[in-house]
Amino acid sequence: MKIAIGQSGGPTAVINASLVGFLDSINEDAQLFGIQNGYEGLVNNELINLEGQMLNRVREFKNLPGACLGSGRYKLTDDKIIQAVKHLIKNDIQTIVFIGGNGTMAALDKICQQARLMGYDLQVIGIPKTVDNDLCGTDHAPGFGSAARYVALSARDINSDLESMKNFEQVRILETMGRNAGWLAASSGLLKQSDEDGPHLICLPEDKIEKGHFLSQVKEIVQEYGMATIVMSEGFNFAGESQTQFASFNGRSVLGGISKDAEQLVKQELGLAARAEILGMHQRCSSMAVSFQDRLEAYKTGHTAAEWIKAGKSGVMVSIQRQQHIGYNYILEPQSLTRVANGGEKLLPIEFLTHRDRFYKWLEPLIGDDIINYPPSLKRRIIKHEQTIC
Amino acid sequence: MKIAIGQSGGPTAVINASLVGFLDSINEDAQLFGIQNGYEGLVNNELINLEGQMLNRVREFKNLPGACLGSGRYKLTDDKIIQAVKHLIKNDIQTIVFIGGNGTMAALDKICQQARLMGYDLQVIGIPKTVDNDLCGTDHAPGFGSAARYVALSARDINSDLESMKNFEQVRILETMGRNAGWLAASSGLLKQSDEDGPHLICLPEDKIEKGHFLSQVKEIVQEYGMATIVMSEGFNFAGESQTQFASFNGRSVLGGISKDAEQLVKQELGLAARAEILGMHQRCSSMAVSFQDRLEAYKTGHTAAEWIKAGKSGVMVSIQRQQHIGYNYILEPQSLTRVANGGEKLLPIEFLTHRDRFYKWLEPLIGDDIINYPPSLKRRIIKHEQTIC
Repeated sequence: MKIAIGQSGGPTAVINASLVGFLDSINEDAQLFGIQNGYEGLVNNELINLEGQMLNRVREFKNLPGACLGSGRYKLTDDKIIQAVKHLIKNDIQTIVFIGGNGTMAALDKICQQARLMGYDLQVIGIPKTVDNDLCGTDHAPGFGSAARYVALSARDINSDLESMKNFEQVRILETMGRNAGWLAASSGLLKQSDEDGPHLICLPEDKIEKGHFLSQVKEIVQEYGMATIVMSEGFNFAGESQTQFASFNGRSVLGGISKDAEQLVKQELGLAARAEILGMHQRCSSMAVSFQDRLEAYKTGHTAAEWIKAGKSGVMVSIQRQQHIGYNYILEPQSLTRVANGGEKLLPIEFLTHRDRFYKWLEPLIGDDIINYPPSLKRRIIKHEQTIC
Repeated sequence: MKIAIGQSGGPTAVINASLVGFLDSINEDAQLFGIQNGYEGLVNNELINLEGQMLNRVREFKNLPGACLGSGRYKLTDDKIIQAVKHLIKNDIQTIVFIGGNGTMAALDKICQQARLMGYDLQVIGIPKTVDNDLCGTDHAPGFGSAARYVALSARDINSDLESMKNFEQVRILETMGRNAGWLAASSGLLKQSDEDGPHLICLPEDKIEKGHFLSQVKEIVQEYGMATIVMSEGFNFAGESQTQFASFNGRSVLGGISKDAEQLVKQELGLAARAEILGMHQRCSSMAVSFQDRLEAYKTGHTAAEWIKAGKSGVMVSIQRQQHIGYNYILEPQSLTRVANGGEKLLPIEFLTHRDRFYKWLEPLIGDDIINYPPSLKRRIIKHEQTIC
């Protein structure tokens, strides 16, 4: 039995754990191939034998960020899909597995359908991965927990730093990833312990905020606390304006830069010293903020994909279904690739937008319980109100 | 005996460890005061009693980033220095201690001289702190080790991420802090294991590189490896051009933005997909990259300052003097504040510029030995050269 596995889309800090979870659990008599550089490698037939020494080498990447097989963003046209399936037929590959997000699952679904059209019996399995958490049909996807941990810790650290320096600068605007979904930006508030703790304002793509209202909120916060830590999703835009685009790479537009616009606005309109901090690629690749729970789940989704191959499942993505018991429990269930593909980007639900405490309760187990119970951060304001000698 | 201690300049991830090291070691019969918001609090007489419950509260900040007493950048004119000394006299404070960098030590030196002029017997001690490592008279300063660790890990992570995505984007330009000194930027190369590992090019303020030469180097690197991870110090400028300034905050110019200029240059002149990543404030405040060695040394410099107060030392900064034995050893010695103040910014010495291996050997013990021995990162290029089935 010949099986090919690839990684696609933006890497995460735990995408290699999924790959190794899969490789560790596959039948020993299977012949394994790694697809290089995502779908580009599939279309161009760039496969490598994963056996012996090479398999052991790949296993060494288990705990390292980045996609060790090479990933990428590749425009998969109908012609290219046909070409890819032809290669699979020619190479006698019966099973194809991809680790990826929305675009990856939609492409897998198309490959599945194309193979059927061409009368080729292809087994297709998807393993979920995204830092944006915008993948449908699963409670969350591996990669998100570590990215959310990075964002939450960054927001706390940057807020502490700004608080020390508020006689020099007053406003910091952190920009997160997330495309059109606010999951990552909303995660920045997880470690906030009181109103005076930052982030003081979180701007999500799901929100529509007027510029004037934004400015008056910032002004009020600075009046109250002497500073404002603001978090802004890259997909956020002020009411009536379009999203800010950082660039167009190879025909794909990349969001980014709204925090810089907001920095200018705060400087010009409020006369405050402001600084945008774009969290950037660190969110998806930092080895410093890996959530062990996230890595474990990444490994388990890979392991389960391997088990499902033995069980003959096809046309499905491994999904994480949270169980409503006391504590944190989940099961891994097959989710139709077509359903995932048709679901589009999963936004932050109304319940979490209106009840942020419920969102934090949902989020807590994913980022690992080793940072939730930090010693409480005592604020300088508390100290300031104590007796002075002057 | 009345003693006042303050924190000044940009915070670090370990500046509170120095404060707690000091507080833990001071004589029990001393009356302690915390100076709020750096020199601004000294001039405005904003002191707080550090005793009982308050002392315990401050101790809770030991392992947290940011300056828990409040720090700041404050222009200390001659008039304000006189005012500060008057407050010290009025409050009967015999000893003043500040944790800070170049500006802080120069200010302490002036206060010391002013007190002498005014016939007041003031004991003055400085505790070193800077992420830029540009402080004279000491092998290195607490705060630098953790910032260097952040930079080295970030460069490795970003490089892994870019390597996964090189069919989508080819160039990343990381911008570090450091003002006119290249210590932090140079630290980015510590975890590089081979030529093909990033960072492939490190641009220091101490270097003068022509734009054309820079572009041809980037082109060559991309031709060779399919990508280029570049690190640029905020203080770097192309030959014949002036440094890029991010902003002027309260009359103080802040460097920053050269990576954005370089991004535009690479896009326009080489037609490559490029992205600047400004590492930003995380370098000085990330709780994720604290070097335990750095924190230990921060604590010890604070402890030593307290010991020196008992010993009657004055007009000195605690300096770290490395001992040339096998392994890593250092002693803490007093360094004249005047000498430190007159030394200016300490740049990367010629020896480290020309022999980067010596610099890395010098740096290694400061960032902690827990990351040096990571499993070797196996490159996709190695995999790529292995047998394929096509």
